[in-house]
This record gives sequence, structure tokens and C-alpha cells, in this order.
Amino acid sequence: MNFTMIFYMLGWILNIIAALMLLPFSVSIYYGETQGKYFLFCSLLMFLVGILLTKKRPHNTRFYAKDGLIITALSWLLLSVTGCLPFFLSGEIPSFTNALFECISGFTTTGASILSDVEKLSHSMMFWRCFIQWIGGMGVLVFMLALIPLTGGQDLFLMKAESPGPNVSKLVPKVRKTAYYLYAIYFALTMLEIICLLIAKMPFYDAVCTSFTTTSTGGFGVKNASIGAYSPTIQYVITFFLFLSGLNYNFFFFLWIRRFKEAFSMQEIRLYSIIFFGSIAIIMFDIVRIGYSLEEGFRHAAFQVGSIMTTAGFSSTDFDTWPSLSKNVLVLLMFIGGCAGSTCGGIKVSRILIYLKSLKKEIAHLCHPRNIKIIKIDGKPLQHDVLRSANIFLIVYILIFACSVLLISVDQFDLVTNFTAVASAIGNIGPGLALVGPTCNFDLFSTFSKYVLMFNMLAGRLELFPMLVLLTPSAWKKQ
Amino acid sequence: MNFTMIFYMLGWILNIIAALMLLPFSVSIYYGETQGKYFLFCSLLMFLVGILLTKKRPHNTRFYAKDGLIITALSWLLLSVTGCLPFFLSGEIPSFTNALFECISGFTTTGASILSDVEKLSHSMMFWRCFIQWIGGMGVLVFMLALIPLTGGQDLFLMKAESPGPNVSKLVPKVRKTAYYLYAIYFALTMLEIICLLIAKMPFYDAVCTSFTTTSTGGFGVKNASIGAYSPTIQYVITFFLFLSGLNYNFFFFLWIRRFKEAFSMQEIRLYSIIFFGSIAIIMFDIVRIGYSLEEGFRHAAFQVGSIMTTAGFSSTDFDTWPSLSKNVLVLLMFIGGCAGSTCGGIKVSRILIYLKSLKKEIAHLCHPRNIKIIKIDGKPLQHDVLRSANIFLIVYILIFACSVLLISVDQFDLVTNFTAVASAIGNIGPGLALVGPTCNFDLFSTFSKYVLMFNMLAGRLELFPMLVLLTPSAWKKQ
Repeated sequence: MNFTMIFYMLGWILNIIAALMLLPFSVSIYYGETQGKYFLFCSLLMFLVGILLTKKRPHNTRFYAKDGLIITALSWLLLSVTGCLPFFLSGEIPSFTNALFECISGFTTTGASILSDVEKLSHSMMFWRCFIQWIGGMGVLVFMLALIPLTGGQDLFLMKAESPGPNVSKLVPKVRKTAYYLYAIYFALTMLEIICLLIAKMPFYDAVCTSFTTTSTGGFGVKNASIGAYSPTIQYVITFFLFLSGLNYNFFFFLWIRRFKEAFSMQEIRLYSIIFFGSIAIIMFDIVRIGYSLEEGFRHAAFQVGSIMTTAGFSSTDFDTWPSLSKNVLVLLMFIGGCAGSTCGGIKVSRILIYLKSLKKEIAHLCHPRNIKIIKIDGKPLQHDVLRSANIFLIVYILIFACSVLLISVDQFDLVTNFTAVASAIGNIGPGLALVGPTCNFDLFSTFSKYVLMFNMLAGRLELFPMLVLLTPSAWKKQ
Repeated sequence: MNFTMIFYMLGWILNIIAALMLLPFSVSIYYGETQGKYFLFCSLLMFLVGILLTKKRPHNTRFYAKDGLIITALSWLLLSVTGCLPFFLSGEIPSFTNALFECISGFTTTGASILSDVEKLSHSMMFWRCFIQWIGGMGVLVFMLALIPLTGGQDLFLMKAESPGPNVSKLVPKVRKTAYYLYAIYFALTMLEIICLLIAKMPFYDAVCTSFTTTSTGGFGVKNASIGAYSPTIQYVITFFLFLSGLNYNFFFFLWIRRFKEAFSMQEIRLYSIIFFGSIAIIMFDIVRIGYSLEEGFRHAAFQVGSIMTTAGFSSTDFDTWPSLSKNVLVLLMFIGGCAGSTCGGIKVSRILIYLKSLKKEIAHLCHPRNIKIIKIDGKPLQHDVLRSANIFLIVYILIFACSVLLISVDQFDLVTNFTAVASAIGNIGPGLALVGPTCNFDLFSTFSKYVLMFNMLAGRLELFPMLVLLTPSAWKKQ
């Protein structure tokens, strides 16, 4: 365990967040709000500590995979605790637990809120709330990797620990360069959405905040009615960008370097599209029956599928009042999530693909035991390690899910509330059904349950293992 | 594909069921009921066809693993269709779909009923309904293996396909002898329970039927109030036998051959006991709060945990009115199920053990990548094949579960009903919650949903793969 290196990295995290807080500070100055002082204070404080920790680069910068997991988990905890300070200090979210919940929900791009009236927030706090989703979407460590170069391939440990998906595929051999490309695509998508939303006549402030929370598939809205407060055109624009944000960033990279054939033949993208449009068709058919017009049915179905499958969690209408079939489809989508290598949560489409191929292989093996089949994805054989870790991921996902449902059911809410609250937290979605439906919020839970859900959000965002390793005593032993 | 052998085996299945139908026929004579004629008619008909099919033993008795799976699946379909005839022909269950549902629910030891008033059934039909659970509990093919000897180790294919658990452990090297021991233990348990229930002053007829459905962990009751209709003493006796019936039969075998140390050190038995008594403690604490006395709380908690975890599905009280925590515990138990090598359904404790150990190994691997750990169960290293098939099992369980919930939600019932109905069917439990709670029945579903649930019951009983292979077109090709 390289403690000096861990402190050094955490110092950098503090520096980064200190710098990022200057942005909402500027917003507060622009709007003439007094809340800016809290951002400035927090920023200076963190910068001070950060500078102290990063003053000297450690002699020994080597660390192991385990250290990478622990650095990732600690970084995210540090982000959460420091990021919530402005909410708490300014009194806009008076309870520390609630401020922390809102902040973790932000960084993990969950979008579950404890606020019953988000419109009461000041412009700068609202901006910060949406901006942390944008930061959390692509990941802070990925950003850090673009800033501080690490040698010896150890940066890959960090990237593996923070990036979603069963298998980190570096776009280019160098991790630092990959981080650069990822942020470039992310930035371009966000800018493009801001422009489109402005053309669709959304106010500038709303357009920026909404683009932050769309491309990060976070789902915090600036209105109490979420996206239901805007025009159908705006809803279509957001649906389109939700669809894009759910795609594997490799797809965009292939487009960038003009390898179109490879981009469109990615099996994950195909399965994602099939599930996406299949779900829209089912829900549209189901809700047109209960009185939506064809256009409305299509719009709300597409928006809600986009919002839930990419685990953003916006709402354009109260889908908790939809018929059971539609709600079931949405609950299933909560578990599936978007593509690996995107900003989405959930189990990820690429893992679903691996599971389906494993099943096919198993049946073929039962029928013809002598034919040995190899699972291939996009023409390449799947490595045994990736397969094993996808299996373990499912097991752990279910174990954490089951334990969490059990733990929060001490609050004695109904099964659907507990079930979808945990599904929503661990899948980084946002709203669930029943008491945590799109018109409700998470404030009803006890402090204990809120901490369980915070753990779920962090575990879901970091794909479970960093948080588990952090909690394993033997991981802390010196090697 | 050895079709002649398949027909030969199916012929034997017909002979066996023809013989078994003479038992309810005798019951009808004893009670002077006219329904006996249906049993006699069906018995003769099946015997006629059976004799024709089994007249000549095929020259080539060799078959492959795949054929074993298909024989198992077809046998169970044949059992279901023939077993439901008396219900249907006699008009006691006028709809064929319902008669088939009740029969499949019986053979698979699910215990989900479409009858709103079971007490209206005649004695002989009720006896048959409970007796098919007893037959299905241990399995018909296992019984057949004790009758017709197969050479060349092919009997193991059948036993593997029909027996629950990730790994068939033969008690003794010979499959035929193993089948004999299993049935002997099963028979002894049933007899012992009949005697205990008689001592507890249960009427003889009820005692026999209830013992059939306890030791098979089936859960059909002879009263509308299920076991709630009997005295607390009887409820305690049944709880005790439910606990025993959830144990791996290897445990009893070890006791039989006086290897006590091995019996009590089985890790699966320990985990089973921990979950069993832990759940009782949580539920007892939870329901005493809402007004149950200590004794009542303990009795109902223990009974319901025993009933749900062993996937029997009896009820002693309407647990759908219990607080959310207790209901959540029961829903989790529905998925866990009893031990492998018992008559229980669900995922099985031994698989849960494998999953927990895989998780532990993965975390150890992440912390110390150079230490290679091997998963051991009861001191023996776990074979890679068993681990792989346990992983695939979980994937398929979840896939079938998710698809089924989606399919039956076309009926537009609420989420809890759909979710627990499927969990109950695939786990071979019986009741669920909400509209399929312990005081309700499954008749509310559409014919389509009933067939989905029938598939789930069979898939759950046969541990998924025989039914999947049956539905795979390439499996039917001649090799």
C-alpha cells in the first residue's frame, strides 16, 4: 500500500475540485447572488490542503491494482464530502445527510433528489448541482490522468476502476491520450446539445444545465416538473441526445477517425438500439391505449425509455400512472442500463450481450458436448478474465441489491418503493416507482436508509468493486 | 438422437403413472365416490399405450446427455398432460388449462392453485392432487431408474437432468442404488411425519395428504385456510418437517451410514441453518411489533420461513398483511430456496454458497493478484465446470424471470403481483404477494399468462436447461 502516493493523488483531487468551484462562484457573481462566498471559501480551503498534499511528488510513484481501486473509492468519497459543503454551509440544504445525498446523487449521475422544490435553489447552487453531474459523468480520475502523467501503466488501474463496462478499451494505446479523446467527445456532445436546445428556444441557463445533466446521463432537472416543463421540441432534442449519450464512446471515436464500418457493426450498439426501439414500441402501444395521442405516446415513450435506459432519470410525465406493462419495461431497463464506455449506469448492454452469448454457448454445449465453441464479440474472442468478471459482477450486483432492499425495508415502505429505490440508486437512475416515483423525492427515507442508498449510488457508479475493496480490512495491509 | 429409446422411456413413464393412478382409485372406493371411474379409465388407457411402447426393449439403448435432457423434459410434459386428465374428465376442474395448471403445479411441487375452494374437491381428487406432489418431489425418472436398469452410465444423464442442485452427488457409485437410497429416505421422512401428525391429533386422511405435500415441499393444502386451519401443535410438527425436507439428502445419508462428523460439517447445511434461523429472528421481531404475541410471532415466523424457504408454500396466516420488512425477507427466501439434493426449488443454498465464495475469491484476487486461490466446498476444490454452470444458471434464472414478468404483465396487474407470481412459479413455491397472496389464487391470470407460469414451474423444477434444450431446434437434429 503506497500511502504517500494515495495522499498525493487525493491532494490533486482537492486541487481540481477547488478549481471547479470557481465556476459556480462566477455564476453567483453574474446573477449577483451572495451564495458565491461559500464557493470561494470552500475553494480556498481545499486549495490550501491540496497544495500541502501535492507540494512534493513522491519518490516512489508505483502502486498496485488494489491501490488503484482504493484511490478511486477514496477520491469519490472525498469529492462527495467536499462537493456537498456549499449546499450545507449556505443552508440551502440544511441537513448534512441530505446535502451529502444530493451531492453523491450528483457525482454518481444518479439524479435522485431529496429536494421537494428544486426551483427554490439559487442560480449558483443549481448550476453546481448540475455541474457535478457533468464532472461525475466522465469521471474525475480520467480528467486527472489528462493533467498529471503517470508512468508505468499504472494510470490504467485508475481508468479501469473508474470507467464503466466489463472491459476498458483504450481508444489509443496511451491512457492519457485516451482520456483526452474521451473528454473531447464529451465536451463536443455537450456543446452540440446546448446549441440545439437554444435553437429549440430553451433559455440559456436552462440549456447549459440541462445539457450537463443529459450528456452525463445524470438527470437533475432545473424545474420541479423536470423536462415536462418544456415544449415537445425540446423534449425531442433531449431524447435524441439521451440516445447518443447511451452509446459506447468507442462508436464516436470510430466515427471521428472515419472507420464507419467498424462503428456501425459494433454488436453492443446494435443490441442497445434493438432494446431501445423495442421498448419504445411496447410502451407507445401500451400508453396510447389509455388515452395518449399517437404523437404524445411516441414522445413520452421515447423520452422515458431514453431517460431510464441511459439511467439519466428525467421525466416528461408521471410514468408511475402508466399501465403495468409499461412500468415493467421501465423497471427492466433500469437494470440493463446503457452501453459500456458511456456515462450510463446499470449492468450495461455489453454485459447483457456476454450473458446472452454465454447462454447460447451453454445450450450448444449441452446439445453437442464435443464441439467447443468460443464466445466472440465483434469478431474477437472474449477473454476468460472478462467473462469471469462479468459473471462475478452479476452475482455482486444481485447480492448488494438484495441486501440493500432488505436494509432499507426497515423503514417499512412498500415493496415497489424499496425495490425501485435500490434499483434506481445502484443503477444511477434517479426516480423509481410508487413513493419514489417521478413526482416524489427520496427525503422520506430515514437517515440510515439514505446512507445505504448513498453506498449503492457510489457502488453502482464505480462498478461495485472499488467500494467493496475499500471495505475489506485485508486490503489495507502493507504489501 | 435415439428416438426409439425416447419412446421406450416415455412408455415406461406411462406404465408408472398408470400404476400410480390405482391409488386414488382405491381411495375413491374406500370413500364410496364415483370419481374412481375416471382414474380407472385413465389408468387403463395409459397402460395400453405404455405396454405398446415398452413391448420391445430397443437394441441400441445408448443415448447422449442431450437425449437425457430431452427425455426428462418430455417425461414431465407427458406426466403433466396425463396427470391432469382425471381433474378435467371428472369436471372437478372444468377448464383444461386450469386442470393442466393445477397438475403442473402439483408435479413441480409448486403448490400454486387456481382453485378458490379446495374443500369442494372429492376425497380421491384431493388425494391425487397431493400424491402427485409427492411423486414430483423426488422425481419420476429417479423412480424409474430404480425399476429399469440402464447400463453404461447413461442413467446419470437422467439423474443429472432431474435432480436439483449444481452438482449431482451420487450417494453411492451406482445410480440405481442411489435412487433406491433417496426414495428410502424420502419414504421414511413421510412415514415419520404421518405418525407425528397423528400423535398431534390430525385426522388420518389430512395427515397422509399433508405429509405428502410437506416432504415433497409442494404445499398443496387440504383446507382453504391451508395449515392455518390446524392447531399450533400441528403447525410446529409441520415446521419441523419442513426444515428437515429443506436439507440436502446427503445429510440424511451420512447420518444413516453413521458418518455424523461429515453430516454436521456440511457447509451448505450450515448456511441453510443460518439463513433459516436468521430469517425467523428478523420476522418474529418484526411481527411481534404489530401485535402478535411472542409465541404466535415465533410460530408464524418459523412456519412461514420454513414454508417459503423450502419452497413448499403453505400458509399459517395471511403474511401479505405483514410489515414490509417481513415480506421482503420472504421474497428473498423465495429466490434462495432450500439445499441442493432436496425436494426444494429456488436457486438453492449450495449455489448461494458458490456465489459467496466466488465473491470472496474475487476480492482476494483484486487485493493480492499474485495469490491464486481455489474455491473449496467441504474441503474439496470446486470444479471449474460446476462453477461455470452455477454462473450460467444465475444468468438464465434472471433472463427467464425477467422475460416472464414482462410477458405476464400484459394482464396489467400490479408489479408486486407479477413479480411474486413469477418468483413463486419459477421457484416452485406456491403463493406470492398482493393478488397472488396466500388467501388468493392464480385463476385471475389470462390463459396466456397461465401457460407462461406453467413453463416457469417446469423450468424451475428441472433447473432450466431441459426445457431450454427442448425448445432448441438444433437439439432435435440427428447426430
